[in-house]
Amino acid sequence: MRVLSGPSSVKLAENISLELKTPLIKAQFKRFPDGEFYFRLLEDVKNEDILVVQSLPPPQDQHILELIYIVETCRELEARKITVYTPYLAYSRQDRRYLSGEAVSSRILAETLQRAGVSELYTVDIHNLGVLSYYRIPAYNLTAADEIMRYFLSKGVEKPLVVAPDDEEAALKRAEVAAKAVGTDYDWFEKKRDRYTGEIVTAEKTLNVSGRDAVIIDDIISTGGTAANAARILKKQGARRVYVGVTHALLAENALERLREAGIEEVVGTDSIPGPVSNITTAPIIARKLKPI
Amino acid sequence: MRVLSGPSSVKLAENISLELKTPLIKAQFKRFPDGEFYFRLLEDVKNEDILVVQSLPPPQDQHILELIYIVETCRELEARKITVYTPYLAYSRQDRRYLSGEAVSSRILAETLQRAGVSELYTVDIHNLGVLSYYRIPAYNLTAADEIMRYFLSKGVEKPLVVAPDDEEAALKRAEVAAKAVGTDYDWFEKKRDRYTGEIVTAEKTLNVSGRDAVIIDDIISTGGTAANAARILKKQGARRVYVGVTHALLAENALERLREAGIEEVVGTDSIPGPVSNITTAPIIARKLKPI
Repeated sequence: MRVLSGPSSVKLAENISLELKTPLIKAQFKRFPDGEFYFRLLEDVKNEDILVVQSLPPPQDQHILELIYIVETCRELEARKITVYTPYLAYSRQDRRYLSGEAVSSRILAETLQRAGVSELYTVDIHNLGVLSYYRIPAYNLTAADEIMRYFLSKGVEKPLVVAPDDEEAALKRAEVAAKAVGTDYDWFEKKRDRYTGEIVTAEKTLNVSGRDAVIIDDIISTGGTAANAARILKKQGARRVYVGVTHALLAENALERLREAGIEEVVGTDSIPGPVSNITTAPIIARKLKPI
Repeated sequence: MRVLSGPSSVKLAENISLELKTPLIKAQFKRFPDGEFYFRLLEDVKNEDILVVQSLPPPQDQHILELIYIVETCRELEARKITVYTPYLAYSRQDRRYLSGEAVSSRILAETLQRAGVSELYTVDIHNLGVLSYYRIPAYNLTAADEIMRYFLSKGVEKPLVVAPDDEEAALKRAEVAAKAVGTDYDWFEKKRDRYTGEIVTAEKTLNVSGRDAVIIDDIISTGGTAANAARILKKQGARRVYVGVTHALLAENALERLREAGIEEVVGTDSIPGPVSNITTAPIIARKLKPI
């Protein structure tokens, strides 16, 4: 298998090629002055198995089109199998027609990628597992929860309580994986909608956190409101230090500031969305999957 | 046939619905805070023939994805026929593999749109007619040259010489249509590549323009260099007033300034690319085609 980098994930693709001990496929991409995308393979890919690495953070549509151009070109030039690794899979929220007439964006993206020629797809901590059912090709969800925990332990965090900020199935599973990876325990908060204001609030359940470190594990942070609420409650219950580990640090305006104000020591994310806190690479996660020892 | 507006061409779609005397289909579109697109049809489209109006100017990739989401949704909701009117068809330059390994963007876009469910496609003054051969569905090129000339005559331009800035087949044909539309004559310049510098220059052929108005007709203006050169030569040959009429006013930085410095009275474009000089609507052009008198 050879690794081909898309424009959104150059550094990640390099890391994966190092993990898999296979050189990157030489390719060229640029934008013309009017904004159109240009892509050129500088090596023959005929009969090759290719891993295209292209995450889909904002600007999502641009990154999706780039992926389509790359996959279609590999297919036209007779690559044998085209596996796509897209740690952040955009459009994973509009997964069904909640209101009549709505675009089911998750399904449309799945159809579009499949028709372009993707043979197999891997993503990480997808917001909604149901989205993968729209893929007729093999499509897998991986998790970064264990890598995140190892990162914090390497930074001196001690026997932390792992905390899921809500009690949805995926969040609990992620917290369990995270805790198991470093031999510690986990617990969770419940999010409730206030009957009168409609606001979503975190219930103040008492956790076994007094005098201990805590790591809040989440799939995505946008405004940071949920994690900030959870952190405040943990501090009130006597947590020593509170950390936030998130797979997709989407970080809307002021999110980091809001989290720091809530007393959080450090926020860390992965390279699924390159940004100021994206200090963990997901390269080993996909590499382990594709090249089992 | 009912008209459905895409986000890039709201005003144009309104104009077309007036021309066709059919109300717009009610629909909602927005971008979520993270940049993802949301689309919802507010009316039933089952068994309807729909005209989706969505031009593809920059940001092209965003407009292409919007078009895909809209067309796919109409198809899922069982529209009978989905005609797309996209006056500016992006990615019309990379129409074949000039160098090994290149993405043939024109073909990939054609494939992607067809697979999304487009039944028929109309565009205007496409940069390269060959691109339409990638469509297995009926795909037509219209011209705005006649509308542009009528615009200038309504502004007091008198018996102008129509000038094609180069002698490519499409440019000559466009100048001919433009001249015929208002009962005047046309001529053309030749563009040549300088043997030593590699620069493209306009040959100083003498035209019958002394003491007359001249209208330079082109499909697209990006930097404005070609039109500015042509205008300078026309002025030197004694043209009274020089105008530029262009279908797609893409207008890279300083293009308008450059054209004004070349002594051009007015630059006008169409609503294929909304912008500061896009004063001509292409609504009658598509309306005439879809609803012959």
